[in-house]
Amino acid sequence: MKILVINCGSSSLKYQLIDSETEKAIAVGLCERIGIDGRLVHTKAGAEKLTFEKPLPDHEAAVQAVLAALTDPAHGVIGSLSGIGAVGHRVVHGGERFTSSVMIDDEVIEAIRGCNDLAPLHNPANLIGIDACRKLMPGVPMVAVFDTAFHQTMPKKAYTYALPYEYYDKYKIRRYGFHGTSHSYVSRRAAELAGLDYGNSKIIVCHLGNGASISAVLNGKSVDTSMGLTPLEGLVMGTRSGDIDPAIIEFIAKKEGKSLGEIMNLLNKKSGVYGLSGVSSDFRDLEAAAGQGDERAKDATEVFVYRTAKYVGAYAAAMNGVDAVVFTAGLGENDKKIRARVCSYLGYLGVKIDEERNNVRGVEAVISSDASRVKVLAVPTNEELAIARDTVALVRK
Amino acid sequence: MKILVINCGSSSLKYQLIDSETEKAIAVGLCERIGIDGRLVHTKAGAEKLTFEKPLPDHEAAVQAVLAALTDPAHGVIGSLSGIGAVGHRVVHGGERFTSSVMIDDEVIEAIRGCNDLAPLHNPANLIGIDACRKLMPGVPMVAVFDTAFHQTMPKKAYTYALPYEYYDKYKIRRYGFHGTSHSYVSRRAAELAGLDYGNSKIIVCHLGNGASISAVLNGKSVDTSMGLTPLEGLVMGTRSGDIDPAIIEFIAKKEGKSLGEIMNLLNKKSGVYGLSGVSSDFRDLEAAAGQGDERAKDATEVFVYRTAKYVGAYAAAMNGVDAVVFTAGLGENDKKIRARVCSYLGYLGVKIDEERNNVRGVEAVISSDASRVKVLAVPTNEELAIARDTVALVRK
Repeated sequence: MKILVINCGSSSLKYQLIDSETEKAIAVGLCERIGIDGRLVHTKAGAEKLTFEKPLPDHEAAVQAVLAALTDPAHGVIGSLSGIGAVGHRVVHGGERFTSSVMIDDEVIEAIRGCNDLAPLHNPANLIGIDACRKLMPGVPMVAVFDTAFHQTMPKKAYTYALPYEYYDKYKIRRYGFHGTSHSYVSRRAAELAGLDYGNSKIIVCHLGNGASISAVLNGKSVDTSMGLTPLEGLVMGTRSGDIDPAIIEFIAKKEGKSLGEIMNLLNKKSGVYGLSGVSSDFRDLEAAAGQGDERAKDATEVFVYRTAKYVGAYAAAMNGVDAVVFTAGLGENDKKIRARVCSYLGYLGVKIDEERNNVRGVEAVISSDASRVKVLAVPTNEELAIARDTVALVRK
Repeated sequence: MKILVINCGSSSLKYQLIDSETEKAIAVGLCERIGIDGRLVHTKAGAEKLTFEKPLPDHEAAVQAVLAALTDPAHGVIGSLSGIGAVGHRVVHGGERFTSSVMIDDEVIEAIRGCNDLAPLHNPANLIGIDACRKLMPGVPMVAVFDTAFHQTMPKKAYTYALPYEYYDKYKIRRYGFHGTSHSYVSRRAAELAGLDYGNSKIIVCHLGNGASISAVLNGKSVDTSMGLTPLEGLVMGTRSGDIDPAIIEFIAKKEGKSLGEIMNLLNKKSGVYGLSGVSSDFRDLEAAAGQGDERAKDATEVFVYRTAKYVGAYAAAMNGVDAVVFTAGLGENDKKIRARVCSYLGYLGVKIDEERNNVRGVEAVISSDASRVKVLAVPTNEELAIARDTVALVRK
């Protein structure tokens, strides 16, 4: 079966058509600048990337353009729309309502809308994409896969903030966590690669991309994660601060006469390694700058690494031990130096990196030495494949 | 030499007169409701507590009352003021300027005033106390002992928030940490008790009181601590939230129409185990309530314990190992259950509690078993004695 995987943002739409038999993407692409002017970037597996400047006044037009590209005689990959067996939609926030992926129906759509409050930028965009697909592909089964669902197994002690209790009761303020599809996919795959029994293992997944989060996966279930009510909390990220003293918000507001909205924008978009370095949110740029003696770029990376190592330590305590530490996403998959530097803090756990094994980019690998008491792995994440798998599983039920 | 130790708040003043030879307090007391009506509670070592309702219009009047009580023929402990060799003042915030205790002179007072911004409630009160003492005891040497000084050895990676760099440059927004006098005193004492070489050891101090913080002390120097720019960050406390997703502040502001000031007040005074339980900020009340089946009281304690254990784990990573975990302050010294519950997460570090040794309250004890790879201790803190020691050391220099 061919599964169309859709990840819809407020002005963009990413897609992949995945063959569920081979588990390969047969076409991938991106609609950008929806509602502004419009551009479609489409790549058929094994072929060149094609870019079409094309008016995309709304998300329906974008979905229409995607379907046209997929069925185009020249660069398409399927003969007709009937070649799409199901659609899997990434949805950011499933609140406490969604603990796993679900078939989409009217009731589910209402329930997703009920979570809009918790992800006011993302969920409405996800819903627009779902609406557009339902209109243009009536009768095709659709599945919602939530970024938060994997973390819904967290125990109360992990998801509870020490706030007045009524804020949880009234507004559901709690830790939700994100990147769940990635943490689930990568932890399971790591268990396979490391020869661990997933249902009886302690795995820490470091999803280190421009957005970064870390999770403690005990016996195949997420028991803690660093992102919280929103994706701002936790690790140092490309442009996000992660953890700070909450009192800093008032301090800056007073000093700079900034509104709360302005400060939230600053913590989300002007902070992280970008804010610290003043150079870039991209670690390749930071490394280049640090190589030329830029102290702030060097320090920014060090702050990032140190915070990550402390979270690994915290989650080892959360699970009373750890069998495997896994690195994934942009940095985690590709940056051997970052992996080695995080692990340099973890000798006390019995972590030993094998320098040669660690000398890999973007491939699955056990990178710890045979003597290491804890397995360390690099595992490229594949959220689209995970979405496609969940979609197939529900459609075939 | 007899040292008067003063801890001055905005409407209160705590004091101890300590004999530097015996290191015992020969009188302790408290002025309350300064500027409101006034009350002096005074206890001579070995005698009954005396309470005097007494107008205390300002801090000078309070210091005067203290000196009168100390020299009173009936319940006093010294014949005249000349019996006071020096005064040690607790000062909350020394910013980056003060890395250790100092003799107080006009320049030091100005520099403390320069840190008022960082502790707007505490430092001005501390300065009022210093002023009053200088007026009433001219010529007596005075020393300032800072709550932040011990943590000034933190490396940049630990004190840096991932914020735009200019906020550090312009406003010195960074992690400072507090309870430094306690972390210093307790870590040193723990090394002695555990037979460790303080200059070559990895010690984690859990200062668990109504305010709570934890520190990583590497080779006798603080290298990380959980409180930050202010004492709000970090552990779950009696009424303080500790760590939260910073985005929660905006979320509550929108939901409740609250101002930033109101939310900061809520995070400082209505949160923590008090907010979670709705019962009390005092763990004795929580335990009683939990014993009667109060689920929220039980959960609040669990959230507190879990957060504490995660910090211990994080600091083990920060130092790449740990030789000793030490519990101090109200809860840490007295509550064997809390100690045991925190340690229940730490088996992977080789922590083993000896139930019988742990069955102590308010005394110094190694509470780990002989087989434990990490020493665990309970060490009552004594900030006043630490202040007196620093004072004597500087005066004798």
